[in-house]
Amino acid sequence: MTPLRTTRPDPGTAAMTPFQPLPTDLYRRVAELLVVRASGHLTDEQRRWPRWELDNTNLQRLLAEGVGGVILLGGSAAELRLRTGQLQAWAGDRSLLLCADVEEGVGQRFEGASWLVPPLAVGRLHARDPQAALEAAERYGRCTGREARAVGLNWVLGPVCDVNNNPANPVINVRAWGEDPATAGALAAAFCRGLQAEGVLGCAKHFPGHGDTDADSHLELPLLPHDREHLETIELPPFRAAIEAGVAAVMTAHLLLPALDPVRPATLSSAVLTNLLREELGFGGLVVTDALVMEAITGRWGAGEAAVLALEAGADLVLMPADADEALEAIVAAVEAGRLGMERIEAAQERRRRALATVAPPEIASVSAPLGPLSSGPDPADRQLGLQLVRTGLERQGGRVELPASGGVNLVRVDTALICPFLGASAPALTLPEAAGFRGCLLEGRSPSPWRGAAEDPAAPLALERLGCGPILLQLFVRGNPFRGSAGGGQEPWAAAVTQLLATGRLAGLAVYGSPYLWEALQPLLPADLPAGWSPGQMPLAQAELLGMLGLGEGCGEGGFTD
Amino acid sequence: MTPLRTTRPDPGTAAMTPFQPLPTDLYRRVAELLVVRASGHLTDEQRRWPRWELDNTNLQRLLAEGVGGVILLGGSAAELRLRTGQLQAWAGDRSLLLCADVEEGVGQRFEGASWLVPPLAVGRLHARDPQAALEAAERYGRCTGREARAVGLNWVLGPVCDVNNNPANPVINVRAWGEDPATAGALAAAFCRGLQAEGVLGCAKHFPGHGDTDADSHLELPLLPHDREHLETIELPPFRAAIEAGVAAVMTAHLLLPALDPVRPATLSSAVLTNLLREELGFGGLVVTDALVMEAITGRWGAGEAAVLALEAGADLVLMPADADEALEAIVAAVEAGRLGMERIEAAQERRRRALATVAPPEIASVSAPLGPLSSGPDPADRQLGLQLVRTGLERQGGRVELPASGGVNLVRVDTALICPFLGASAPALTLPEAAGFRGCLLEGRSPSPWRGAAEDPAAPLALERLGCGPILLQLFVRGNPFRGSAGGGQEPWAAAVTQLLATGRLAGLAVYGSPYLWEALQPLLPADLPAGWSPGQMPLAQAELLGMLGLGEGCGEGGFTD
Repeated sequence: MTPLRTTRPDPGTAAMTPFQPLPTDLYRRVAELLVVRASGHLTDEQRRWPRWELDNTNLQRLLAEGVGGVILLGGSAAELRLRTGQLQAWAGDRSLLLCADVEEGVGQRFEGASWLVPPLAVGRLHARDPQAALEAAERYGRCTGREARAVGLNWVLGPVCDVNNNPANPVINVRAWGEDPATAGALAAAFCRGLQAEGVLGCAKHFPGHGDTDADSHLELPLLPHDREHLETIELPPFRAAIEAGVAAVMTAHLLLPALDPVRPATLSSAVLTNLLREELGFGGLVVTDALVMEAITGRWGAGEAAVLALEAGADLVLMPADADEALEAIVAAVEAGRLGMERIEAAQERRRRALATVAPPEIASVSAPLGPLSSGPDPADRQLGLQLVRTGLERQGGRVELPASGGVNLVRVDTALICPFLGASAPALTLPEAAGFRGCLLEGRSPSPWRGAAEDPAAPLALERLGCGPILLQLFVRGNPFRGSAGGGQEPWAAAVTQLLATGRLAGLAVYGSPYLWEALQPLLPADLPAGWSPGQMPLAQAELLGMLGLGEGCGEGGFTD
Repeated sequence: MTPLRTTRPDPGTAAMTPFQPLPTDLYRRVAELLVVRASGHLTDEQRRWPRWELDNTNLQRLLAEGVGGVILLGGSAAELRLRTGQLQAWAGDRSLLLCADVEEGVGQRFEGASWLVPPLAVGRLHARDPQAALEAAERYGRCTGREARAVGLNWVLGPVCDVNNNPANPVINVRAWGEDPATAGALAAAFCRGLQAEGVLGCAKHFPGHGDTDADSHLELPLLPHDREHLETIELPPFRAAIEAGVAAVMTAHLLLPALDPVRPATLSSAVLTNLLREELGFGGLVVTDALVMEAITGRWGAGEAAVLALEAGADLVLMPADADEALEAIVAAVEAGRLGMERIEAAQERRRRALATVAPPEIASVSAPLGPLSSGPDPADRQLGLQLVRTGLERQGGRVELPASGGVNLVRVDTALICPFLGASAPALTLPEAAGFRGCLLEGRSPSPWRGAAEDPAAPLALERLGCGPILLQLFVRGNPFRGSAGGGQEPWAAAVTQLLATGRLAGLAVYGSPYLWEALQPLLPADLPAGWSPGQMPLAQAELLGMLGLGEGCGEGGFTD
């Protein structure tokens, strides 16, 4: 980041030059509308994504200069509690918006809190038992809000209000609350009520609807070709429901919707943000952009211009600009040039103030309970909710996995083993099969290839001789993931591999964690008595439950007691 | 753990029955001599080794009942600060001994603090520049002590005083300060002076010397066949040096030394602990057992009897018994039966009190600096030390790695990717070669085999077709590791693989991180101009430095900004 210093106030000088109070004041007002990215760790070296996360020197400077919000990723719940306190202290008397993408519970991102099954599992439950699903979604929100407060967050970037009616969607997928508008709307609203009842702000996203795309806006700008009528029928209802439920904020999508605006993506479009969201839908809360750093925006408009365009279009807050200083300078310049009206800045500030006025203070902590009620982890009711959601979401068929007489293979597929919070060395997906005689074989993004060459038999794609002898328990961890270029495992020939393992008599069992779509593609291939199952959740609890149902319930202790 | 409840005092009852104050008092006195194992995380679910780490309910109960020490593993520096505060709060007014195996700096175990190169790198420097090595070892101790205090530890379980004169040693290896007694002694003493000058206790280990074994006491009981004269010449001098330097504690080894005691391992032998250590060497500080839970001890004597035998033999503190309650009950019973004299308990308590009286209080923290001076990570002088030690330890040959015209392979070998603090998704060992056109191929303990079958050509063991096309940059992370059954990568035919890659013209470069012995075995196979090097340290800083020297200095930012 090479900040332009032209309009940056020097606090010392500014204090001594009462003739020019405006730039300082304007600068601070604009800064309040920025939400910058930081890691939840205390030190710079611990940042997992240093290219995207401000270092402490710049972060502290920006907060001292008035930046109003921080989005956090990385670290445990305990670290985050220290970090949010630190950031708030750096900001002085001004209250910060402290947010995170904890759509699936605070434990999804910050270890030590509740990690719940993806919302889509609740969406599936809704088809069978709407009342149970609505109650679960509200408790899901309550749990997330309570734990957010315990770690010092006051803004949860959820619920996802996108309708995942496109199974090939690489970014939304199981993050959605439903595959139809009514389900998504009802559950997102219920989540939102639960969340905000705990004194934490919510955020409906990604407006006007990101469910029906098969492109990843982290990488390119997706296009939604639907007409206005289709939007009214499919995309908008969940947002209307969330607004009705009082959601504090709405996040924009980096999507091109030619029916509404043929030139600008939703994030930068006044047709979408002002005409549609503010005026037609009557939303009076905070409008925040999705991360402006995404290639779909920054690649075309640049960090400064994108921020100005977003505010012009009707956004109140600018999330994660590619360069915070550049965005600040550009917005200040746009106001000074008369391009952006001061009333836009003031209105955004006022909405921010109103939102912050509704948040509850962080939980009280002590030395013996440094995270307040979260100090020993989730409370019993939230643990019960987590377990109930895992169990409700499971599907299974067949009986118990037959234990291998002389050893078998536990073939585990993950995107990457290097950042894999659900697959530590003691994960049930490893230890339970190990105890039953299946030695682990781990396939991850950088593994030596387990596949035969493309020219060889495509009906028998696995190079079985590389995986070891004996029956194979196949465990596939697959879900839609940003940046991974697919809705999950799509390029890998798992259907052919399952057929191959069945043909060779080597498939002992199958477990799919995450994507329902992969499970739905594989299950029809299986004999009815083959032990198999699907869990929407990938977390250790889900592994233990699914494997337990498949007869692999007896864990072994791990070998060593140190690493 | 199924505690025997026969002699457990009921605090309520005890208070009302003044006729029997002794059991309560005795129980609490004995409990003070226990050091139990806990994770550095706040919650039970975050434990990485739940089989070995007490849950919070039992931990809190044992501390309330008087247990006097906790050994911690897991969590970041920030979490550990919260954890040590919590444990001390649970113990009330009594001061706890709070220790950890941070032999290579606090950051070796707790992210956010300094992670220094293994001591053996300083040992190697000693041969070239003794004065520089002595200064480095003392600064190493200072850094470790200062950071230990910042996270609330008051006892560092180092220095290792074993002489690593057996390259096949699976447990000591690069943890030793030297491969000869003079080096190991001088540097261990210098480390100890630096450490204890910061108000943190040290611990010389593993008495009387664990360097010359090729068995792993975590798994079995190693035998040291040397006579007394050999011990005087090789094993004992470093311990004498550490005692001379005022080391606060000595840890016993789970080793059988027939020359001293034909029946009992050192940990349980009064010939070793009392006659040799106390009387001949005149050590007046704390004697602590190594973890009694290790199979070499618990497998044969059981949790209770092992603890009694250790105290009988002359130990003051019992570390990590397989079952804390069972150990407590057994010791209390032994005292009550007159088998263990009360004066042994009192003497141990007195030594513990004296040691605790010398420790400095934890650093003062605040909301904006929750780890005191460690809040932004290591201080500049310690960072400088870390860098200097990495650079001093490097060896290299050849020129710059030739960048592959149409892509190459970055073949990285680690023990396991699932607990691998040095190989996160942004690790230089991955990102630097990636930026230069070498796509990652990761070999870890559970990968599909990269080897041809044993029956095939043993001179060409790598199945190259599984690894991808192009030149191969080979990076081997190997060091002696407990529980891994070897001094590191020993069973894998890396010498033959290097020869094979050279023969096929595909070896672009070689980097060895950790074991000098593997480097010394491979380097003679290399042409003098082949870019290659060894770094004793495996941490990201070491990766960046070594790869930079090999011409791979330009990092790329990682792809995504979330996971």
